[in-house]
Amino acid sequence: MPSAAAGTPPPAVTRILAEFAAETRAADLPDIVRSEAARSFVNFVGCALGGARHAAVERTLSAARSFAGGPPVALIGRAERLGALEAALVNCQASAAHAYDDTHLATVTHPAGPIAAPLLAEAEQRPVDGEALLAAFAIGVEIACRVAASITVAPADGNVGWYPTGVACPIGAAAAVARLRGLDVGRIMAALGVAASQSAGFRQTHGSMCTSLIPGMAARAGYMAAIFAEAGVTCSEQALEGPRGFADVFAPKAWLPHATDGLGARWEMLANMAKPYPCGIVIHPALDGCLAIAATDGFDPGAIRRVELGVNPLCLVLCDRPAPPDGQRAQVSLQHWAAAALARGQAGVAEGSDAAVADPAVLAVRAKIAAMPDESVGRDGAVVRVLMADGSEHARHIAHGIGSLERPMTDPELDAKFLDQARLSLSEAAARSALTLCRRLPELADVGEIARATQAGAV
Amino acid sequence: MPSAAAGTPPPAVTRILAEFAAETRAADLPDIVRSEAARSFVNFVGCALGGARHAAVERTLSAARSFAGGPPVALIGRAERLGALEAALVNCQASAAHAYDDTHLATVTHPAGPIAAPLLAEAEQRPVDGEALLAAFAIGVEIACRVAASITVAPADGNVGWYPTGVACPIGAAAAVARLRGLDVGRIMAALGVAASQSAGFRQTHGSMCTSLIPGMAARAGYMAAIFAEAGVTCSEQALEGPRGFADVFAPKAWLPHATDGLGARWEMLANMAKPYPCGIVIHPALDGCLAIAATDGFDPGAIRRVELGVNPLCLVLCDRPAPPDGQRAQVSLQHWAAAALARGQAGVAEGSDAAVADPAVLAVRAKIAAMPDESVGRDGAVVRVLMADGSEHARHIAHGIGSLERPMTDPELDAKFLDQARLSLSEAAARSALTLCRRLPELADVGEIARATQAGAV
Repeated sequence: MPSAAAGTPPPAVTRILAEFAAETRAADLPDIVRSEAARSFVNFVGCALGGARHAAVERTLSAARSFAGGPPVALIGRAERLGALEAALVNCQASAAHAYDDTHLATVTHPAGPIAAPLLAEAEQRPVDGEALLAAFAIGVEIACRVAASITVAPADGNVGWYPTGVACPIGAAAAVARLRGLDVGRIMAALGVAASQSAGFRQTHGSMCTSLIPGMAARAGYMAAIFAEAGVTCSEQALEGPRGFADVFAPKAWLPHATDGLGARWEMLANMAKPYPCGIVIHPALDGCLAIAATDGFDPGAIRRVELGVNPLCLVLCDRPAPPDGQRAQVSLQHWAAAALARGQAGVAEGSDAAVADPAVLAVRAKIAAMPDESVGRDGAVVRVLMADGSEHARHIAHGIGSLERPMTDPELDAKFLDQARLSLSEAAARSALTLCRRLPELADVGEIARATQAGAV
Repeated sequence: MPSAAAGTPPPAVTRILAEFAAETRAADLPDIVRSEAARSFVNFVGCALGGARHAAVERTLSAARSFAGGPPVALIGRAERLGALEAALVNCQASAAHAYDDTHLATVTHPAGPIAAPLLAEAEQRPVDGEALLAAFAIGVEIACRVAASITVAPADGNVGWYPTGVACPIGAAAAVARLRGLDVGRIMAALGVAASQSAGFRQTHGSMCTSLIPGMAARAGYMAAIFAEAGVTCSEQALEGPRGFADVFAPKAWLPHATDGLGARWEMLANMAKPYPCGIVIHPALDGCLAIAATDGFDPGAIRRVELGVNPLCLVLCDRPAPPDGQRAQVSLQHWAAAALARGQAGVAEGSDAAVADPAVLAVRAKIAAMPDESVGRDGAVVRVLMADGSEHARHIAHGIGSLERPMTDPELDAKFLDQARLSLSEAAARSALTLCRRLPELADVGEIARATQAGAV
């Protein structure tokens, strides 16, 4: 295990990240960074359309209406508008509500929503072109992923109870907004520090509405931190790396080089991938196997005798829930989702509903699942074995699931995912025109158009 | 060291605290709890009057105006009003801005502001009588102190980098507001969980404006959590004690009995004391000694040769700053405050100004200070030795400083502290009438009167 040389001061992480946010020129972004940022942003908009009417969002929104203020901006997939900070909260929460958004797997962080939502709110208050937005977004996601890595990736050893999205994303969101607003390095440093002072959230909330509220609050916290810093609120210039700062409290062995090494040369945000299924990421590879088996000619889920799932140990740490009582809690249930995939042959938003969780066909399969940790399987892999009543057997070994670095979702898959979700909030025509507009994001002169288009026809 | 019996489930802390918040009857509060709660609330109002024009507050407020919404309530010590959540943030920040508020020394938490500010904002939206307000306040402070103890007091071993006010007070504030709003136990549990999911802040921020922003954000987070929970946002029912919950992430050896043992019988909030000096609490006992020496007949600070301060080790962990550049950073400088007390014979708000930090007389003494950890001295004690150029010596051993449990500030001392601060924002007449009204708090039919009175004559 590497260790810092004794007496070496920690790198000036807060300053280095602030300079990166301030000084990276949009035109200098590698093409792959720009194009992946665009795919990720479009995925965010689609997910927000999909979650716009989720019960968790409805409840948050009914409360937020009572205290939201400031310039009203669009609520994606809804007809109404709300003050910018609370709109960022609600839009981000909507994008996270079905756990269908995106994942940086090395840290299990879902960064797009908390970074994109405040940027879109900004883009409605004055014209922001596609290039400026994508640069701010790529930089914000990059910072969120790297900060998350500094406290979770070996040799760092942050408690697995922390919810990295809530912890790291305020910092990325603050960087993104501060850059878009043109703050100088000193104020961006303050924004990062104030944001880090609001880093929060733990996984005991998983399975409740607070699971999606935490990303929403991360969006709001980062946005607010940039606004406070712009107004001159100061913070420690060593907020991230100082002896009683962010890294110290979130991981006893925090590894700051993860945050800064190769910054701008190697882009960690390229490892942030859109999710193919609306549930905990560590469940996904098993679903690839279950869906492949369910698609076998003549497969009869009623004739299943036993299902054996060999999964990465982290999958069971986070998602071993054999009998979740409802859709919200099933979001982090390996057993529910594997059963639903086998019983229904699909794993979409409908399989996350309360009705699907109570579906007798799903329950029958769920009772037959045995899940086991398998150290030989990566976080993006799984082994699925289905033993049938007649003694036959189906088996699939998934080395790298769909949505992994090795098998990213294709553009047509992302389009289909977008439309499936958009139809939950928009007419078919509005859904298609929103997608068309989103696909033009890099060339738009006014990204606010997207926000407005996602309200067109919203019910 | 005690340890939990293997296999014993943790106590249902979230439920136990929610039941305490919901079911404790105001009429059943011990008299001492009611009277100490009243003293603490009055101290909060005075501190908010004192900090209403602090630069940190001005900057936060200039930003918060751009996004505050909802029912406007009073900003203490100012002529304007602001949406309730942001007003709670700003009023709490004002009360913390001079670090003059209050401390629960066992945990080094400053709970009154984050609990009182949202309650006062509530009391302006519908009439709340003094008895109801004091009960909610006492319960909120109690929960904040106990939750803080569960992660900081042995055998708990939370990282000293955490800022307990930001970490524990959202939970206390949520409990207080939820109780005042009459939420049922289930919704109060959700409020506690949502609040804990926003627990945040670390001490690397100390010495910056973020030091007072964090308590303000704690007030806002707790307030918001209660509003979200009332609207039906759910959270884990084991948010505090669950395996990946609050206690787990904030302290590897969290000790939950501190949160629940003797709840309602033994009141931890009685150990929350008003601060006699506007700086870090661990500096205070040394100031008692310095001020006593400075008051010696004929004492000449210009003739000091050397100052030796023997302090509790925690004092140096938190406040060993030999040469702070400005008042904000001097708030956590033992050396500045000891020097100011010796050089100027007082340790009030004026000694925390940038001018005082640059005062040549103070600087001359500061250069002669040697601070040493002394394990024999409690957190509320200090040994001060001042060696003079002529070979003579002054020494004071402070066993328990003013503002400690053994030597709480008297009512006249609290009145003087209130008036000194109130005069920074109000006319003499308005200051005196605000104090008179505050002193009648227990019998008021509408506590909102206090909020309005603190605006009378505000400049």
